[in-house]
Amino acid sequence: MGLEQGSNATAATFKVVAEGSITTPKGFTAGGLHCGLKKSTRHDLGAIVCEVPAAAAGVYTTNVFQAAPLKVTRESIGSDGKLRAVLVNSGNANAVTGKQGEADAYEMRSRFAEQIGVEADQVAVASTGVIGELLKMDKVRGGIDALPAKLAADRTGSDDFCQAILTTDLVQKMVCVSVEIDGKLVHVAGASKGSGMIHPNMATMLGFVTTDAVIDSEPLHQLLRGVTDLTFNMITVDGDTSTNDMLVAMASGLAGHTELTPEHQGWTDFAAAVRYVCEVLAKAIARDGEGATKLVEVQVNGAVSDESARAIAKTIIGSSLVKSAVFGADANWGRIIAAAGRAGEPVNPETVDVSLGSILTLEQSRPVAFDEDVALEYLKGDTVLIKVDLHLENGSATAWGCDLTYDYVRINAAYRT
Amino acid sequence: MGLEQGSNATAATFKVVAEGSITTPKGFTAGGLHCGLKKSTRHDLGAIVCEVPAAAAGVYTTNVFQAAPLKVTRESIGSDGKLRAVLVNSGNANAVTGKQGEADAYEMRSRFAEQIGVEADQVAVASTGVIGELLKMDKVRGGIDALPAKLAADRTGSDDFCQAILTTDLVQKMVCVSVEIDGKLVHVAGASKGSGMIHPNMATMLGFVTTDAVIDSEPLHQLLRGVTDLTFNMITVDGDTSTNDMLVAMASGLAGHTELTPEHQGWTDFAAAVRYVCEVLAKAIARDGEGATKLVEVQVNGAVSDESARAIAKTIIGSSLVKSAVFGADANWGRIIAAAGRAGEPVNPETVDVSLGSILTLEQSRPVAFDEDVALEYLKGDTVLIKVDLHLENGSATAWGCDLTYDYVRINAAYRT
Repeated sequence: MGLEQGSNATAATFKVVAEGSITTPKGFTAGGLHCGLKKSTRHDLGAIVCEVPAAAAGVYTTNVFQAAPLKVTRESIGSDGKLRAVLVNSGNANAVTGKQGEADAYEMRSRFAEQIGVEADQVAVASTGVIGELLKMDKVRGGIDALPAKLAADRTGSDDFCQAILTTDLVQKMVCVSVEIDGKLVHVAGASKGSGMIHPNMATMLGFVTTDAVIDSEPLHQLLRGVTDLTFNMITVDGDTSTNDMLVAMASGLAGHTELTPEHQGWTDFAAAVRYVCEVLAKAIARDGEGATKLVEVQVNGAVSDESARAIAKTIIGSSLVKSAVFGADANWGRIIAAAGRAGEPVNPETVDVSLGSILTLEQSRPVAFDEDVALEYLKGDTVLIKVDLHLENGSATAWGCDLTYDYVRINAAYRT
Repeated sequence: MGLEQGSNATAATFKVVAEGSITTPKGFTAGGLHCGLKKSTRHDLGAIVCEVPAAAAGVYTTNVFQAAPLKVTRESIGSDGKLRAVLVNSGNANAVTGKQGEADAYEMRSRFAEQIGVEADQVAVASTGVIGELLKMDKVRGGIDALPAKLAADRTGSDDFCQAILTTDLVQKMVCVSVEIDGKLVHVAGASKGSGMIHPNMATMLGFVTTDAVIDSEPLHQLLRGVTDLTFNMITVDGDTSTNDMLVAMASGLAGHTELTPEHQGWTDFAAAVRYVCEVLAKAIARDGEGATKLVEVQVNGAVSDESARAIAKTIIGSSLVKSAVFGADANWGRIIAAAGRAGEPVNPETVDVSLGSILTLEQSRPVAFDEDVALEYLKGDTVLIKVDLHLENGSATAWGCDLTYDYVRINAAYRT
């Protein structure tokens, strides 16, 4: 599945691998199946497995209520910075499930570890779905036992995994790029899922990155955190931060170059590749937000700092009124500046420009006459760019979200029932 | 219009005056008419006038983009703490309209002052409606000239005013109470409007309080600020803070008791009356939020402080997922604790109780079995109470909001067009 190629990441030396998948990096297999947690027949249990201990890093939700699998995954990565596998179920978040939920997460870990012949603390677990209900462990156990036979190093294994992690998502989200380091071809791939309770703060509601780069756990973790702030942490669907957000990266180290550190001449290229992968996945989550019909990108320039620009961009992208106006293809720039004005960041009310795509609607805080029909046509498209220039300093940021639609309400008025 | 009688304000000595209105306090007349700013024939220009200089106080939006009328009103109240009148138009917010918008607001002020024979700086102005369009001043001028003839001290004048300040509101919002001070009957009345871009921070998108109490501008201002934090600042419809939020109180001083200060023995009773009036109006705005079918009240107890409880209550009431679940009558307490857990305030994930009305769904963070049919019936009602006890300290707060519905999206997808 080739996701959109556009990116704000640094002009890059990496290449998108059109036929690539999360199993393209050397050493990885993946798979998925339906074990019975979802009412539909869609896959609901999947895994990525590495044939060698992969350097691993994770970033997790800041929500106080962290789900049981996050505790287990923290322990697994924390033990020695290595993982052989990550096991994921959808249909049930195993969150706010108390001691039994923890016991279930540990049992998932140890049972799958036994099935693939590795130590329990080499397996990470992740869950997504409804909060507050215990896992149907009889279904999960049967699924875990059947899963190893489904693992494959080809596109089918990757697709099965990508389907298994979805909840209300409509499309699978996966991307693969390659970059040359020390004359060796290195692959970086990723998969993710949304699509509600999306306002990530530290990580998104399930993202997985695989690579065959040679890199230790610690620099991988640092890189992942920095990239997350510019990608997954810059998207919002509904302003709600999940209890289960988790982004896990695994590096098999099989690409054969010398080990990557920030001092390595190939570091910048590798970092750009990882950022691109995360940005594509983050944008895909935003575009596939619950009920969404459009991807909305907000670019803020001229803020007093990048951090300030990020806060303003996230306030605009999170405004229900802006999101409703975009759904209705209404060039309502008043709502955009009202959102900018309540972000709690420095804004000079006399010096703001606002554009919708290439249509300037406000210049130095003065309304500009524009052709409403042209604006309507632009806003009817499937991607809407909102540009705000504050004309203060050089701080800039980009955030992504989606429109607010009837379908968002329909989906969430009857999620549990 | 008798709004709901229930209140969390201190057990009170005041009485609701069923047939009262904003003109019941001695000295006030009010009125409204259709001058042509709204496409419909509903009133769009109104005023409250006091026959003597009334002690006045205002609280205003924290949005960086403050509309022109706020500047003018600040000046009027700031000059000597007195007002003779407040003039309000709906249909156009006169926000982000630059120098011309300011000139228009000043002209509204001076033209109406002249019509009623007072000084310009004794008149406050307020506007509500679309942002970024200039007022049709020919319509406004005609309306101002016709308005004095419409002013009346009876219920008709009050009703006309209450209609003139509405935008997407479906119902008028007004309440009147009486309280005895020094053996004298004192009236406190108020009117307000919502119903979108509602997440007040210092004041709501238009509230007006009239009273015949004898009180100076400064203690009235202090009281109004404190009450606003517990009432208007605790409601949200969509998380968006308007550019035009304004709450203005006018005290005619005609009730004949000795002057009220915080040391006066009648202060507590008066403060309770003002709080009740503001709470009723705030709840009415929440219930009449754009597209809303229900009033939602969130009570948070056991937080580390009242401030912390307020932050948590506002995060829950603002969650699109909680609001959608309430619309769908889905007892999805997982979303309630997920919202509590992202509020950035101390929460022990092991000690939280959650109830929907009298239905306990989570106790000490453990799911409680409850009858889904009973919960469904409760959630189908027109008022939903969400109670959260954190079991930490004694901090408590109450916030009000509404459900998120198809109609919210419909209204806001096509507001301007």
